[in-house]
Parts: sequence; structure tokens; C-alpha cells
Amino acid sequence: MTFVPTDAARETDAQAALQTAFAPQSVAIAGVSPRTTGWGGGQMFLRAIRNLDRVPQVYCLNPRGGELDDGTPLYRSLAEVPGPVESLISAVPASAILGLVDDAVAKGVKVIHLFTAGFGETGSDERAELESEVLSKLRQAGIRLIGPNCMGVHSTRGGVSWMDDSGSTPGHVGMLSQSGMNASEVVGHGARRGIDFSNVASFGNASDLNEADYLEFLANDPDSHIVLAYLEGIRNGRRFLGVAREMSQRRKPLVVLKGGLTEAGSRAAASHTGSLAGSAQIWDAVQKQGGFMPANSVEELLDLAVTIERMPGVSGPRCAVLGGGGGVSVLAADICDRNNIPVPWFADQTQQVLREFTPVAGTSIRNPLDAGFMLEGDKMETALRAVADDPGIDWLMVHTGADGGGPRGRQDDHARQMAEGLAAIVPKLSKPLAVVIRQARTGEGFERGLDLQHRLNGHGIACFQSIDACALAVRRYLDWQQR
Amino acid sequence: MTFVPTDAARETDAQAALQTAFAPQSVAIAGVSPRTTGWGGGQMFLRAIRNLDRVPQVYCLNPRGGELDDGTPLYRSLAEVPGPVESLISAVPASAILGLVDDAVAKGVKVIHLFTAGFGETGSDERAELESEVLSKLRQAGIRLIGPNCMGVHSTRGGVSWMDDSGSTPGHVGMLSQSGMNASEVVGHGARRGIDFSNVASFGNASDLNEADYLEFLANDPDSHIVLAYLEGIRNGRRFLGVAREMSQRRKPLVVLKGGLTEAGSRAAASHTGSLAGSAQIWDAVQKQGGFMPANSVEELLDLAVTIERMPGVSGPRCAVLGGGGGVSVLAADICDRNNIPVPWFADQTQQVLREFTPVAGTSIRNPLDAGFMLEGDKMETALRAVADDPGIDWLMVHTGADGGGPRGRQDDHARQMAEGLAAIVPKLSKPLAVVIRQARTGEGFERGLDLQHRLNGHGIACFQSIDACALAVRRYLDWQQR
Repeated sequence: MTFVPTDAARETDAQAALQTAFAPQSVAIAGVSPRTTGWGGGQMFLRAIRNLDRVPQVYCLNPRGGELDDGTPLYRSLAEVPGPVESLISAVPASAILGLVDDAVAKGVKVIHLFTAGFGETGSDERAELESEVLSKLRQAGIRLIGPNCMGVHSTRGGVSWMDDSGSTPGHVGMLSQSGMNASEVVGHGARRGIDFSNVASFGNASDLNEADYLEFLANDPDSHIVLAYLEGIRNGRRFLGVAREMSQRRKPLVVLKGGLTEAGSRAAASHTGSLAGSAQIWDAVQKQGGFMPANSVEELLDLAVTIERMPGVSGPRCAVLGGGGGVSVLAADICDRNNIPVPWFADQTQQVLREFTPVAGTSIRNPLDAGFMLEGDKMETALRAVADDPGIDWLMVHTGADGGGPRGRQDDHARQMAEGLAAIVPKLSKPLAVVIRQARTGEGFERGLDLQHRLNGHGIACFQSIDACALAVRRYLDWQQR
Repeated sequence: MTFVPTDAARETDAQAALQTAFAPQSVAIAGVSPRTTGWGGGQMFLRAIRNLDRVPQVYCLNPRGGELDDGTPLYRSLAEVPGPVESLISAVPASAILGLVDDAVAKGVKVIHLFTAGFGETGSDERAELESEVLSKLRQAGIRLIGPNCMGVHSTRGGVSWMDDSGSTPGHVGMLSQSGMNASEVVGHGARRGIDFSNVASFGNASDLNEADYLEFLANDPDSHIVLAYLEGIRNGRRFLGVAREMSQRRKPLVVLKGGLTEAGSRAAASHTGSLAGSAQIWDAVQKQGGFMPANSVEELLDLAVTIERMPGVSGPRCAVLGGGGGVSVLAADICDRNNIPVPWFADQTQQVLREFTPVAGTSIRNPLDAGFMLEGDKMETALRAVADDPGIDWLMVHTGADGGGPRGRQDDHARQMAEGLAAIVPKLSKPLAVVIRQARTGEGFERGLDLQHRLNGHGIACFQSIDACALAVRRYLDWQQR
């Protein structure tokens, strides 16, 4: 190694490299098989990038040359590529990696993403050495590395992705993830839940660019208003904490799911990304110092994104719970209470308003309000406004099922009417409102629930999949706000 | 009151009354509106009972007489009914209840179910008094009461139900529930999960027959091999505990979901069924004494039913976790560990077998086995048998998604092949196996997951909806076994 830049210089360099990776002017993909319907990694990236159709120049490499079945040329090597290449995606086997790296140095690429796996994470000394050699060559040339052993970057605005089914609406949630699959699940489930993404990075072994670099990028990214993270190991704890703290001071929300906090998970993380995962106790201290929100699953990451995007005005925990079903109401109250979300009785005045149009039999109007029929027609506005105006209530949770007896058409109408009703009323309410759509039993119910959720998402209304998930997310967001 | 039977006599009487209610020779439904497509309670029971088509005589009552729109006669009162009536279902308003009770006494019915609500649970003294009056009239006549304020009984074998969409396969899981909706949810979701029911009772206010009577019935019911319960209050704690303990000694599994354990839930339970719910501390002691399994949600009741029915041979907690996705594997290991389910590394010999057909890159074979491809074709049998034969492993958990990229047909094939492969291999394995089908993102994925689950259910393979749910259920079942 002839030149070792200072840490600060390397950090700036990292941010420039990530800027390029997320919105390149030119991309080359190495290891593209000729069939455009193929399932290899190269074709996966090509399909996703072509789908987004934003990168001006996309080149495909295959050592045998020739062309794709749609006539696109396959270049034998980077040297053959006619124009400049800013960003290189490698889907070649690890055995071919050193040659590709040499070509990249010669071509002057700025950033390489190695989808290629089979390095330090295998536990083999030989392969860990190969990873070091790759890194050393790249460092000498000033090329930054994403990965190895990862899916790389996804940006609808920049036109890069590994997911050809990710939807294409640019959003305001950023994500860094040491696991490509967890990132894919968050983005995929996010589409269903109305959460659109800005810039997402899957970074695997993190042998060069690490969690602190990605976090810094997203912390300063004006398109990312919220940042989600899935981490296994931490390479640079000091810098990561520094960036997290700075975000916390600016009130930019960061939610972190940490994998490998148990003994079994930690062993799995070592096999997955070669990470040293650390203990739950240490992580607890990190979290307190970093001032970010914790999540325990992929679903919880999204629950918090939904809460932050759709219920930013929630100012306290006291909840009005509304929906049909006495037993469901009892369990809902238990669940809220266990999540430290109080469900206080409504004020007398509120109860009087509700009593006016409630039959005395079979319904409770004290809170939870066990009265599904109140969420239909004209009654809905009166009931929701009365409850929202109760001085003892901070927010409203409406729960509903998507299945149910009766002919299909009636159920569809019910879902549509509920969505339209809520869309008209929610802007008039003095408090934030969340909707819980309980789990479906049938394919029809699932579709109906998706449709209801989609309509509510379209009106900016927060939707959750269970009362538990909703209560927990609101509690965590309030705890973060109140720090 | 002229005659007060002893407790023991009343208890025997209760069992005979329940026998009649679950399999009556004749039923009368009071409060049936003339339109067979109507949504009133009377029509709901009529539709469900006609659907099952097992009760020899079914009579419909309406004070205006006339007939249903399909020509069935509507009797003005019980006195007009030509034959005997063993069981009476009341869907009349509370204001008409005393007249109906007098008619029932005159007719000599054995058991009355009051779907009718609006009694003690409203908190009104006047209505609590009405409930007492009804009870007093019935006691004098020796008629037993289910409810009021409940859905009553469901028995596919006996031909009675309130659910017209409950499926109609008689099974071996019984349930008692103070909430009709929770019972409906358990039966409805049970159909999806391959759990069929024997006898189910929703019993609301429990002013006469109470939780101890229903539990005793199901404890002695040869068709009910497992009993699930949703309870709010306990009317007769001593007897309930006695029956529960006796079941525990016979190793007949009982799983109880207790609503109203928090302050908010307890208030809600008082409004719902007039129950005094008691504290979590007291309940903890009851549970220890009663020797039953706890559940915290409707889903957990079903998770335990699936575990008990499909994995009776699980003899220890040590789990082999198999499926695709490195990050998913790390989180799976964390989740298992948190549920006190160890995920130990496989023995060297097992790892050697797996290594033979695993590429070194991008997969972990230590446990979790991060190798989705191993669950395809010939590799599946070799991988599962090797893992099952590992002396450090007690049971296997296979996790899979139902969504995924690629054309629809390919995904469908994958699900079908996986189901067929598992069905052929599982009987040859030396250890029990569970399948987790992770949450779908799309309607197509949900349908595909349902199809996979349905196929696996058909082969008696245990399916769960999340790794968490699976690990928790197995842990609880083992704890119960090891008592």
C-alpha cells in the first residue's frame, strides 16, 4: 500500500462514492447470462435497473461476449465497454473476482458493489485472505466497496435496485441493512403498507464501507426523512454512535433492528456476514447513548415508519379503542395496558353523546367502545368526533376485521364505505387516528383488507396489522419523542 | 322458590342440559324474521342450523305468525308448536323475555339459550333484576340457561351453531368462551389452520351454567381431545380449578386465554359480560394450581392446538431451523433463543453431510441452516434426514415465504413441490417437524400460502404463521408436558 488516506478524507470519499452508487450516470453489471428470463444475479440486477429506467448508460459483461437474447451487446470485459463506468455491480463467482477488480482499477470506476459472496463469512482463512486482497487493491486505487455478499443499493429516484417487483414510487424512508433479504422484506411489505423508500442499502460483510458510512449518508440525505436499520455487527461503533446521536439531536428518526443479540443469533450472524454481534446488555447501552428507537422484527421497523409518517402529531399515550366485539375489546384493552398505553373511561359528556344513539343491550360505550355499527354511515362522524374531543384522550385506535359473514358484495361495500368515511372525517378530528385491520382468514378477506389498507394509505391514515403492533409502535414513538 | 336442589344434583343436571343443547332432537328459535336473507339473530341461527342439517325438528317463532319467504311456518308462540321442544334459542329483545320464559316452562323445554342481551352487563340495576327474575323462573322449573348475552353452542356433530361459514368437519378440539366473537375467530381461523372442532360454547354472562359446567362437559366429552378456553370472570373458581386439575392429571390438554387481566381490560370485561376479572397475580396462582397452558391471544390458542394435535411427540426444545435467507436465519435464532428454544450447532457429522451438496459461498450450514435450495427436490430428504438424526436436535422448524419474485406459475410449483416433498419425507423423520409460512405481501402470496398450508394440514404437518408463534407454542407445550 503506497498511500493511506486519513480517516476524515476516507469518510468524505465514502459519501461521494455512495452518492454515485445511489444515482449513477453509468453502470456495468459483470456476470450477466444471455437469457433475459434467467435467474442469475446479473439478470436480476439488469431487470431491476431496466424496470426503473433512469440510469443513462447500462452495460452488461460476460466473458464469452456475444449478446443478450434481446440484442443488447455483452462485453467480454470492462476494457471493451465504450464509455466511462461510474459504478460496477459484480455477479461473478469469487474465483473470478481479482481479474474483475484489476479491470475496474484500469477502467477508473468509482464504486464497486460485490453481490459476489464466498469471502470471510464462510469462516475459511483462504477466503478471508481473498477478501483482504480485494480490499487492498481497491484501497490503493481509491475505489470504494459495497459488500461483499450483499444485494447492494436500491433507489427509485436513482434508478438502481435488485428488486424488480419493488414498486416505483420514490418515498422518504431510507434503510441500511446487513441482510438483503430483510431489506427486500421491508421494502416489499412497505409497498403494501404505503411506505415508499428513498435510498436503501444492503451491505453484507461491510469490509470497506460500513454501517457508519451508510448511516451518515442517510442522515444527511434530504430525501430520507426517516431511517430504518437492520444490523448484525458494528464495525465502527464510535462513528455510528456519533451519527446516531447527531440525528437524535436534530429529531431525525432512526429505528434499529439488531440481529444476533442472543447466543444463537450471534453464532448465526457470524456465519451470515462474519459479524461479531455483541450482547444484549451492550446493545442496550448503545441504544440509550444513540437515542434511537428499537425494533425487534422487520414488521416493527415498518410499524414505526407508519407511526412516524402518519401520526406525527400524537402527543400522549391515552387511547380511545373503537370497534366491534366485546371479547375483542377486552383483549384490546389488555394489550394496550401491557404496552403502557392507557385506555381510560370516557368523560361523562362523551358517554352521553354516545349513549344517544346506542342501544343499551350488548354494547359498551365506556372505552373500549364496543360498537362496530357506530363506524358506519352518519354515526361514524358523531362517534369519532365525540371521542376525539374527550379531554382524557390523546389518540384513537379503530379496529376492524376484513372477513365476516354475509355475501361478498356487502363486505366490499362495508370496507369501501369505512375507508371513504374515515378519509372524510379524519382531517376534522382534533386527535390522530390509527386503523387496525385484523388478520384475514380467507384469500377474499385478505384482498379486502389489502384494498381497505390501500384506500386508507392513499388518505394518509396509519394502518396496522394488530392491536399489539399499533400500541407498541405508538408507545415507542412517544418514548423517543419524550427523551 | 319452592325447591332448591343440592349443588351436586344441579351439576349433574347441568351436564344433561348441555348434552341436550349440543345435540338436540328438537330446537325452537324465537325471534325469526320472515326474510331468510335477513341479518337478525333468529335468521343467523336458523341458517347455521339448516346448513348443518342434523337436528330432526327445527321450529321458528315470530309473534306475528305467518311463514318464512320459503314457506316454513312461523309459530306465534311455543304453545302453537306441534311437537316437543328440547332446546330453545331466544333472539327476542330483553323486553319480551319474561313471556317467552313462561311459555318455555309451560312447554317443558330442557335448556334455553339467550342470545338476548341487555341484562346485568349493562350496569343497570333494573336490568340486573330482570336477569335475576328470568333465572329464578327457570330454576323453579328446572330449566338450565346458556347465557344470556352470548352466541350459544356450536357442534358440527350435533347440528347446532351460530356460524353459517364455519366449515362442517367434526373435529377433536373443544372450546368454551365467554365471548362469541372470540369463539367465532378461533373456529374461523381454525378452519384455515386445519383445526376442526367438536363442541364449542359461547356463554356470555354465565348467570346459570358457568365456566365450570362447560369445562366439565368438555373434560368428559370423548370427542374433545383438547380444550381451549376464553374466560373473563370466574363464577365458581373452586369447581373450575378442580376440573382443570383433574384434566391435568389425566394429561388432557387445556389452554386458557384470560381476558381482563389488566386494569383497562378488567373494566372492559365488566362492561362486556359483567365479569369481575381479577388480577394477573391471582390468575398466575390459579394457572399453576390448575396445571393448564396459558395463551395471550386468540392466535396463541390455535398455535397450541396445532402443536398438540400435530407434534405430540416433541420431546425436547433443541431446534434445527431451516430455510432461505441469512438475515431471516439470524433473527430466527434470536427469536428461538428468546423463547427458550435452543438452536445448537449441528454435530460435525451432520455438517459434513450438508456440506457435500452446499456451495461454500453465501450459505450457513451450522444451524440455522440458511439454504432454501436444500428444501427442493432430492436434496430435501437428505438434508432433513441428516438434521433429524443429529443427536443434539429434538425437533425441526422449516420456514418459508409465500411471496417471492418470478412468474406466478413457478411460485405455485414451488409451493406444491414443497408440500408434496414434505408429505413424503416427514413420516420417515425421527423427530417432529413444524413449518412456518411467513406473512404474505400480496393477495397472490396469501392465496399461495393458504394453499401450501392446506396441503400440509392435509398431511397432518403442523403449520405456523411466524417463527415467534411456533417457538412459543412448542415451549409452552413442553413446559406443560414436563410438569
